[in-house]
Amino acid sequence: MTTRERSDGKARRRVTLRDIAEAAGVHASTVSRALDPRTRHLINPAVAQTIIDISTRLNYRPNAAAYSLRTNRSRTIGVILPDIENPIFPPMVRGIESALLPRGFFALLGNTDGDLARERDLAKSFVSRGIDGLILAGVSRDDQIVAEIGPETTPIVTVNRRLDDKAVSSVVHMDDSGVLRTLTHLVSLGHRRIAVISGPQNTSTGTERHESFLRHRATLGIGDEDPLVCFADAYTESEGERCLEELIARSVPFTAVMCANDRLAIGAIVALERRNIRCPQDVSVTGYNDMPMVDRIHPALTTIRIQQYQMGVEAGRIALEMIDGASEPRHVVLPVELVIRASTRAIPARD
Amino acid sequence: MTTRERSDGKARRRVTLRDIAEAAGVHASTVSRALDPRTRHLINPAVAQTIIDISTRLNYRPNAAAYSLRTNRSRTIGVILPDIENPIFPPMVRGIESALLPRGFFALLGNTDGDLARERDLAKSFVSRGIDGLILAGVSRDDQIVAEIGPETTPIVTVNRRLDDKAVSSVVHMDDSGVLRTLTHLVSLGHRRIAVISGPQNTSTGTERHESFLRHRATLGIGDEDPLVCFADAYTESEGERCLEELIARSVPFTAVMCANDRLAIGAIVALERRNIRCPQDVSVTGYNDMPMVDRIHPALTTIRIQQYQMGVEAGRIALEMIDGASEPRHVVLPVELVIRASTRAIPARD
Repeated sequence: MTTRERSDGKARRRVTLRDIAEAAGVHASTVSRALDPRTRHLINPAVAQTIIDISTRLNYRPNAAAYSLRTNRSRTIGVILPDIENPIFPPMVRGIESALLPRGFFALLGNTDGDLARERDLAKSFVSRGIDGLILAGVSRDDQIVAEIGPETTPIVTVNRRLDDKAVSSVVHMDDSGVLRTLTHLVSLGHRRIAVISGPQNTSTGTERHESFLRHRATLGIGDEDPLVCFADAYTESEGERCLEELIARSVPFTAVMCANDRLAIGAIVALERRNIRCPQDVSVTGYNDMPMVDRIHPALTTIRIQQYQMGVEAGRIALEMIDGASEPRHVVLPVELVIRASTRAIPARD
Repeated sequence: MTTRERSDGKARRRVTLRDIAEAAGVHASTVSRALDPRTRHLINPAVAQTIIDISTRLNYRPNAAAYSLRTNRSRTIGVILPDIENPIFPPMVRGIESALLPRGFFALLGNTDGDLARERDLAKSFVSRGIDGLILAGVSRDDQIVAEIGPETTPIVTVNRRLDDKAVSSVVHMDDSGVLRTLTHLVSLGHRRIAVISGPQNTSTGTERHESFLRHRATLGIGDEDPLVCFADAYTESEGERCLEELIARSVPFTAVMCANDRLAIGAIVALERRNIRCPQDVSVTGYNDMPMVDRIHPALTTIRIQQYQMGVEAGRIALEMIDGASEPRHVVLPVELVIRASTRAIPARD
């Protein structure tokens, strides 16, 4: 029948693996292996190339729906971002994509704007569209979404933040190390009165960085007075501005502000500028994340470099391992480094 | 049957519209209208609130698959980005989301990294998952993907760039106006020898900005010599660096560089710095897009402000109109403005 259809020279029928196999003089299963990047290495390279050339010439298009039915896999991972305008996420998405690509998986992205209802709707929308796994980049510590989706049916990995519930796989950074490095740097520059803009306490990054600050103050000899802390409601520039104003309003002098992320730090610098307080001459400011462009802003930001790309790679890998059947949760904690730039300097002798 | 199931007190059966209707003492169609943000205004507000409260109490979850079957709509729009690391896209995505949200539609995003094969795979993956429309932010001028997907079956809108084929709806900016404003600004500062880093000529923004430059040179009295132009292969910082080096290698002096986008301009500034050529004292540099953060880099970039958020809003609206049945292609061309910052200045008297 295949021959008869083809003999009329006008068949609009979809080209199948069988057609390619016939043209190449191999078995259909060989064609299947050659066209799948995951199994191509099982075939002689010259044969694989011949099959690929023939499939291109015949304009072969794999049938995604048929693949899904056969394997019960859609080869897509849903990635839920809390805030698409935060520049740390694009490199992370690239990392995820680079982990997925060799296996032929795609990342489909959704943005929640930090809205829990939207996170829920998006996650359910992904699941109802048959994604194979979920990577969540904006979870709160007690996020209910994971329980609602059901980690027993859908592989779930959190990235950048983690849940209090350690049954869910995660990729995060050594927050304690980052905070300790920042504080040590500021103390070594002579700063003693260090104000802090902490992140939202319903996020793991918010609490872990804040608790690290409290833990290391005494060791570093800066723990005599009440901590001068303002808690941001969100990791945004506008919250950085608001918190800096709140810190100033308390009328307790400080020579440095340690911020829980770069966007808060940028907001703090904007607020200082508006009050004609110079950074770093009057007040040093530190960020966290080393997001793209903070090396080029004025003043260039001293910050903690997290592994934005690598955290994506690790999250993608873990998601694939879970799809392949790994059942134990995995937790990756990546190291960080301090990047010293122009926004911090030694306090003047007059101080 | 509904009552019997409920009387055992343990029914795990999904809560339906009918259950809510019964509890509220209204017809199921009233519940349906009250729970759909698009039709809620048809119902008495107090009744609508009662229905919403009951649906929350009963933990009602709309059945997306049933909705899809009933309406043949998935209420998702696929958005394909050419480069998730370009900061103009997050505000655009927000604009799209803000247009979709009141109608209960989601944006699902995919990133192609400018790879045409990946764009094709992603678009087909979206279509096979039943998206209702596609918004393409990275098309080349003769992109085949639209023809392959079939605009007659799937509403397609291009945003930021357009196809040569005017049958496909688009949202772009007045590139000619942007280039003219930039050139007029540079000429008014005394610049005559203006080098140009043009964008990829397989994109509408690349050709339209380049052709505007050629068109306006004569009018502005700077068209006597051969144009000093380098064409970038991609809109990236590294291509900006390479092009600046290529311009210098030609040994034709210039006092300003007009770049086809901000990322090229940042690359050009980096290359100038490396050669100890000061911007703006020795060479003025202009960008295009006014992407986030270019007001804070050093030197703050003179650029053309496009409407990143609004182009997303318009693209989302057009996609919804097409889903609702509009069949004529629509083309929106948004105005731009010149933003003068520190990267441009008058050439010194000695020149």
